[in-house]
Amino acid sequence: MDSSESLADFLARARSWVEEGLDRALPPEGELPESLHGAMRYAVFGGGKRLRPALALGACETLGGSPGDALAGAVAFELIHTYSLVHDDLPSMDDDDLRRGRPTCHKVYGEALALLAGDALQALAFQVIASWPPGGERALATARILGRAAGSLGMVGGQVLDLEGEGREPDLEAVRAIHERKTAAMIAGALQAGGAAAGAPPERVELLGKAGILLGLAFQIRDDVLDETADAGTLGKTPGKDRKSGKRTWPAAVGLEESRARAETLVREGLALLEEAGIRKGPLPELALYLASREK
Amino acid sequence: MDSSESLADFLARARSWVEEGLDRALPPEGELPESLHGAMRYAVFGGGKRLRPALALGACETLGGSPGDALAGAVAFELIHTYSLVHDDLPSMDDDDLRRGRPTCHKVYGEALALLAGDALQALAFQVIASWPPGGERALATARILGRAAGSLGMVGGQVLDLEGEGREPDLEAVRAIHERKTAAMIAGALQAGGAAAGAPPERVELLGKAGILLGLAFQIRDDVLDETADAGTLGKTPGKDRKSGKRTWPAAVGLEESRARAETLVREGLALLEEAGIRKGPLPELALYLASREK
Repeated sequence: MDSSESLADFLARARSWVEEGLDRALPPEGELPESLHGAMRYAVFGGGKRLRPALALGACETLGGSPGDALAGAVAFELIHTYSLVHDDLPSMDDDDLRRGRPTCHKVYGEALALLAGDALQALAFQVIASWPPGGERALATARILGRAAGSLGMVGGQVLDLEGEGREPDLEAVRAIHERKTAAMIAGALQAGGAAAGAPPERVELLGKAGILLGLAFQIRDDVLDETADAGTLGKTPGKDRKSGKRTWPAAVGLEESRARAETLVREGLALLEEAGIRKGPLPELALYLASREK
Repeated sequence: MDSSESLADFLARARSWVEEGLDRALPPEGELPESLHGAMRYAVFGGGKRLRPALALGACETLGGSPGDALAGAVAFELIHTYSLVHDDLPSMDDDDLRRGRPTCHKVYGEALALLAGDALQALAFQVIASWPPGGERALATARILGRAAGSLGMVGGQVLDLEGEGREPDLEAVRAIHERKTAAMIAGALQAGGAAAGAPPERVELLGKAGILLGLAFQIRDDVLDETADAGTLGKTPGKDRKSGKRTWPAAVGLEESRARAETLVREGLALLEEAGIRKGPLPELALYLASREK
C-alpha cells in the first residue's frame, strides 16, 4: 500500500483485486449446471461497491499483512453479501425487481434458481476460506468470524427482525437492533477478517469488530437517508421503498436531521476505536468518513 | 466402538450423540430472534434418520479416530442436509406440505422465515467446523469437503439438474448425473469428513468419497423405489409425488425391477471400495447393505 494512494485509487485497486478473486472462485459459466453458474455470476458481477472487501484489504494492509493474506476473506464476505441480496430480493422477502439498476436475479433466472444460486454462493464462501491462503489458524478464525457475522446472531437474524418489525412503531432501539445485525455485523466482520488475515492478536480483532459495528450503523443510516432523498437513477434501485413498506428506518424513528447527526457521531466513535486497534493511517479512516456522507 | 455392537445399537448411539451436538450448536429458542431460532430447531429436530452423522462417526471410529474428532463434521453435515430439505420444500421449489409426518417448516413459520432459517443453518454448519475440535488442518479439510459436497458442483447443482429435468425423458445418464450430485455427494462427503477427522491420509479420504458416491446412489434408488411402492404412513411424506411431478427417477428410467438390481450392484461395488479404504469391520458395511434395502 502506497501512503500517497488516494481513497479513490485504493477503492479501485480493492475492486479489481477482489473481482479477480471472485472470478477465480466461481466455477466457469460453462460448468454443469450452466444455468446455476450463470445465475451465480450474474449476481456477483452486478456492479457492487465491493465495500466489504475494501475494508478487509485496508485492515489487513494497515496491520502489516499482504493482499494475498486478505483475499480469501474478502472474496468470502462478498459472496455472502451477494447471496443475501439475492435472497432478500425474492418475492417471499422484499420482492424487488431492480438491484443496482439491473433486473434482480430471480427476474432473470426464476425464483428456484435464484434461491439455489444464493445457497451455492454461501457454500462457496466458506470453501474459499478453507482452500486458499493463508490457511491454518488464520483461515479458521476467518471462518468463525464470517459464520458469526452471517448467521442467526448476525446478518440473517437482522433480516428476521427487519421483517418482523414492518409496520410497527419504529423506535430507535428496535432500529438499532435490526441494523447492528443486518448490516453492521458484516461490515465489522470484514474488518475483523482483514485483521485476522494479517495475524493480529484476538484483542485487536475484537476492537476492529466494535469499530465496525459503529461504522456499519453509520453506513446504514446513510442508506436509509438516501432511500428518502435520492432518485432512482442515482440509487440504482426503487427509492422510498423502505418507508412505503413500513420498514423501521432511522429517519422514520428520529427524522432526517437527527439521523445525519447520529451518523456523524457514530463515525467519530468508530474512528476512535479504529485508532485503538492500531489503524491511524491508510485508507480506512477516510473510507469511514465517506461511508457516512456518500451520495449513492 | 464395541465390535459386538449391533447396527441398530450403533445407529441409536450415533443419533443421540449427534442430537446432543446439534442441541449444543443451535442457539437456544429464547435467543433473539426467537422465531428464527425456533424455526431452525423445528427443522433440525424433526425425526431425521441422522444417516450422514452415522456415516461420519462410523468412518472416523473404524479408521482409529474418536467420536469427539468426528462430531463437528457430523453436526455440520446434518445442518446442511436439514437446510436443504427446508429450502427444497418451499413453494418455489417442490412445494411440499409434509416432511417426516409433520408440516414443513414454511407451513409453520411462513416462507420468509423458512428461507432465512435455512440460510442460517448453513452458516452455522461451517461455524461449528471452524470452532469445535479437532481444529487445524483436519477442520480445514472438513470444511473443504463440506463446501464441495454442498455447493454448486454437489448438492445444490443436483437440485438444479433435478428441477430442470422435470417432465423430460428420464434417461439413465441424466438420472445418475442428478443423484450423484443431489444425494450421493453429501453421503460421500460425510464418509470423507469422518475419515478426515480421524486424520486419514488424502488417498484414503478420496477412496471413501468414491465409495460414498456408489452407496449414495444406491440409497437414492431405494428412495425412488419407496416413493412408488410405500404408503404415506410408512414414508412420512406424500408418496408418488416424484413420478407425478415428472421427476427423473430410477424407476421411471429403468423400471422397478432393474432399479432394485442396480442398487444391489452399486452397494457391492461400494463395499469393495470401502474395503480398499481400510473399512472392513465396524458398522459401515452392514449399514451400506441396509441403505439399499430399507423399508422407509
